[in-house]
Amino acid sequence: MLRTHTCGELRLTDLNKQVTLCGWVHKSRELGGMTFIDLRDRFGITQLAFNLDWDKNMCELARKVSREYVLQITGTVIERQSKNKNNPTGEIEIKVTGFKILNEAIIPPFTLEDETDGGDELRMKYRYLDLRRSVVRKNLELRHRLAIETRNYLDKKQFLEVETPVLIKSTPEGARDFVVPSRMNQGQFYALPQSPQTFKQLLMVGGFDRYYQIVKCFRDEDLRADRQPEFTQIDCEMSFVEQEDILNTFEGLMKYLFKSVKGIDVPDFPRMSYANAMKYYGNDKPDTRFEMKFVELNDVVKGKDFKVFNDAPLVVGICAKGAAEYTRKQLDELTEFVKRPQIGATGLVYARYNNDGTIKSSVDKFYTEEDLKKWAAAFDAKPGDLLLILAGDEEKTRKALSELRLEMGNRLGLRDKNTFSCLWVLDFPLLEWNEGDPNLPESMRGRWVAKHHPFTSPKPEDIEKLKSSPGEVRANAYDMVINGVEIGGGSIRIYNKNLQATMFEVLGFSKEEAQKQFGFLMNAFEFGAPPHGGIALGFDRLCSLFGGADSIRDFIAFPKNNSGRDMMIDSPSEISEEQLKELGVKLS
Amino acid sequence: MLRTHTCGELRLTDLNKQVTLCGWVHKSRELGGMTFIDLRDRFGITQLAFNLDWDKNMCELARKVSREYVLQITGTVIERQSKNKNNPTGEIEIKVTGFKILNEAIIPPFTLEDETDGGDELRMKYRYLDLRRSVVRKNLELRHRLAIETRNYLDKKQFLEVETPVLIKSTPEGARDFVVPSRMNQGQFYALPQSPQTFKQLLMVGGFDRYYQIVKCFRDEDLRADRQPEFTQIDCEMSFVEQEDILNTFEGLMKYLFKSVKGIDVPDFPRMSYANAMKYYGNDKPDTRFEMKFVELNDVVKGKDFKVFNDAPLVVGICAKGAAEYTRKQLDELTEFVKRPQIGATGLVYARYNNDGTIKSSVDKFYTEEDLKKWAAAFDAKPGDLLLILAGDEEKTRKALSELRLEMGNRLGLRDKNTFSCLWVLDFPLLEWNEGDPNLPESMRGRWVAKHHPFTSPKPEDIEKLKSSPGEVRANAYDMVINGVEIGGGSIRIYNKNLQATMFEVLGFSKEEAQKQFGFLMNAFEFGAPPHGGIALGFDRLCSLFGGADSIRDFIAFPKNNSGRDMMIDSPSEISEEQLKELGVKLS
Repeated sequence: MLRTHTCGELRLTDLNKQVTLCGWVHKSRELGGMTFIDLRDRFGITQLAFNLDWDKNMCELARKVSREYVLQITGTVIERQSKNKNNPTGEIEIKVTGFKILNEAIIPPFTLEDETDGGDELRMKYRYLDLRRSVVRKNLELRHRLAIETRNYLDKKQFLEVETPVLIKSTPEGARDFVVPSRMNQGQFYALPQSPQTFKQLLMVGGFDRYYQIVKCFRDEDLRADRQPEFTQIDCEMSFVEQEDILNTFEGLMKYLFKSVKGIDVPDFPRMSYANAMKYYGNDKPDTRFEMKFVELNDVVKGKDFKVFNDAPLVVGICAKGAAEYTRKQLDELTEFVKRPQIGATGLVYARYNNDGTIKSSVDKFYTEEDLKKWAAAFDAKPGDLLLILAGDEEKTRKALSELRLEMGNRLGLRDKNTFSCLWVLDFPLLEWNEGDPNLPESMRGRWVAKHHPFTSPKPEDIEKLKSSPGEVRANAYDMVINGVEIGGGSIRIYNKNLQATMFEVLGFSKEEAQKQFGFLMNAFEFGAPPHGGIALGFDRLCSLFGGADSIRDFIAFPKNNSGRDMMIDSPSEISEEQLKELGVKLS
Repeated sequence: MLRTHTCGELRLTDLNKQVTLCGWVHKSRELGGMTFIDLRDRFGITQLAFNLDWDKNMCELARKVSREYVLQITGTVIERQSKNKNNPTGEIEIKVTGFKILNEAIIPPFTLEDETDGGDELRMKYRYLDLRRSVVRKNLELRHRLAIETRNYLDKKQFLEVETPVLIKSTPEGARDFVVPSRMNQGQFYALPQSPQTFKQLLMVGGFDRYYQIVKCFRDEDLRADRQPEFTQIDCEMSFVEQEDILNTFEGLMKYLFKSVKGIDVPDFPRMSYANAMKYYGNDKPDTRFEMKFVELNDVVKGKDFKVFNDAPLVVGICAKGAAEYTRKQLDELTEFVKRPQIGATGLVYARYNNDGTIKSSVDKFYTEEDLKKWAAAFDAKPGDLLLILAGDEEKTRKALSELRLEMGNRLGLRDKNTFSCLWVLDFPLLEWNEGDPNLPESMRGRWVAKHHPFTSPKPEDIEKLKSSPGEVRANAYDMVINGVEIGGGSIRIYNKNLQATMFEVLGFSKEEAQKQFGFLMNAFEFGAPPHGGIALGFDRLCSLFGGADSIRDFIAFPKNNSGRDMMIDSPSEISEEQLKELGVKLS
């Protein structure tokens, strides 16, 4: 090794030791005849001391190096005069006796401090410099720790880690595939997996009993905020289980991770049906760090002269505790918020339950104070609370109110990143009607699609409705939701080939299509498939949740931007005519 | 859980317990009024007992199920009358009281025993059935164990596991890339990584100090025997190190794996220069489980009337201990062996050192017994030994003799799969002249190419020869060789941008090409790159070595065949016109 110690490990107990350190010049400063350099590596920062009196040449050399030079120094550990209690090595410094510049450095395009002046684009382009910032490095250290602990837990539970292939087969179900032209089988393509779904099911058919993998998956989507074309999943599957077993096993995993990585004891996860999540939160991934449940007001508000409420299929609101003193300006902001096109409400009705017991609303023209007291009672509101009410089409209104609820949660400081509220959402619908998501190929629009995926089993008692009322069939599917983020989801799978064939039929696959796309799975089911189910957890998202961040980008070493470009290596890029020719493809 | 126990855990100590088991019908047999079923899961096999006298209906039901049916049974643990000492559960059986068929099964196309009648193609097509065979499952369990222990070791040594991207940039260096057309950046392509080489170097520039990853890599090669288009590496990089540090760290890893996974204490790895490996074994990955070193005979054999030897630039041989009694037929076989086109020798000269002290050779016409005694002395041969000698062009003859040596090793039983001989091969040439490997794009032929890769550092004392005598420059590169298999290789990297630029120049890159392909790396080197180096170990090959197998295929859950096809999912396959159109490519 070019060093005897790292820059993070020397203490007062090492006084007088001869040491050699390597690292980057983080900062330097002159103080009279002295020069100090903060030498940085992954493990910490150690102060180097030079003195014109000790060694004039060396001190002058030290004054010439600038930030990010790479040094190898030798010296003696001495006690510092002015100690820095914030740095674990802050009680000592190195009296330098040997000094070597291992590499020079030009000035970085942004400052490599916890707070940086580099914008996103610049940081992405020079990601290798951004990675030197301790905040970014700590995020990736957290990721490493989470991966290790995840494997520890699953290994103890007898899960086998199995690598599934990356070059697989394109299927039209779900999102768009990335494809890879095959040179050896011209005119044919591999696809990159959106998930190892069919392989993990085949591993169960193969008797592997418990499988896991921390695995890259790929989705060629138009990238919305904070999506990446390649992302990582903790992917798991178990045989001879029921839903309850999966919930217990992975609730156990999450409790173990919170405890081992963050030292937090998380209580048992509450469970909520999809129907109740939509009813009380307008959202299948409710943020339960705060209450503020939806209250339906149709029975309370109708029958007066207020046409908006009378005509609306749904009038529904939330009670924001202690927000009665919101100013007119703040209320106008909320109205603007709900009227933004992406929220889509036509207006906002509010009622202030003042501390003096009076109630004033934005619709006093139509409702007496007595009427409003009934509203307050419906919300179980107390003096000092603010009622916020939306009206309109059922689905859209719930969705808009969900956004308003989250906005109020933010404004009232109810969404602390260091508080964690975990939840299972259960009993999802098996199917949803797809009008024509422009992200889907044309052939996939205007038909029933699997809400989870086509291998999810319906609840046994709902199977008979599969053909008659597909929309009413509930699935043995579950989502793990933490702080309003869907951390993972899964289902108990279909393991009967006839039921699987029916499912493909309902999804509009012809027998030939089903056989062509999923024949290998249906054939496998002929040979004795065990009951099985599983889950996939979004690992990037889990890391950012544990790191208390909103974005996943800084928990990925080399992320891509919203156009799917790696700004650092400048990819994707053109390839040679020769390569195209060998592959048997050309640009159109 | 649908079971209380697995099929591998019940013992005599569990007598009289009520249990529920799930699994596959492995075998069944009738014995008078009794029926026995071997129920199998991943964990073992437990015998189920039925008796017409206990429950006629159930016993008859049990007689109807055939192999690979999936059952859930309930019953009482009882002591077996005739115990099976070869099975850990062989002292007990289950007196079945509850019986449920979870799934039916048609007859598998091959027998699911350790020895199977399924050929390779059939096994690949029905891989999910092949995985039920305990030999295949055990291979994958071994792989899981090796991955866990690798991570344990590296984690303790403060390596950080970092995921590098899969969608990267195509570079012309090395083998052919798999490419992925970008829909969002039409006309441009991602490439799948042949290794995370540049990313791990950038992580070192980013101060990550120690990186590892067990990672999928991709190479679009014409598949020779036992290569896969996607394969897995243990990929590592360290900063502030010299070659010695890398050798110690990864020799340590391998010793740890042998100890923790196989219980074997492996001695310190001997080290051999590339030059000596070629001189004594004709091979840069010599199998050192046995000696049988090459002995050069030019000084001993020349100057007689034997034109073949006189004209040959090199006469070289091996001494096969105790093989003097080889029959004429066996010797003819060896001659045929070396004359095969892939070996390419023109003939084989042998000399038997008989037990009675006489020596008889195939060239007695030209050499007296006294001459032959000198040969024997050169080999340090003893009575009973057989000398095998080839002559011809230096490089070809060494290569042919290397093959003959391995063949003799096999014939003499010197290549035991349970013996492990580890070795470092050092001081590789930095560059090799490439005449025109048809696997390389045309532009890459007839020029100097990097033997390891273009980031490998030359030995400091050889740098001055980079431009004048590129072929003589040695690299700071090393291979880990076990039992004649290259398990891994790596190098100390160039970290100086000027040296890297020189290297690209020697490799025939114009400045523009170098900037276009590797600009991001050379730019990164402007900002203070630390001295660094690393290694990559072939994980599939390591697993097969530990498993005592020749092929890597059965250590990969879902391998591809020699045409790069996944026979099970029938991939690659055609994709829709719509997909092609969206991607902006068409078939040519």
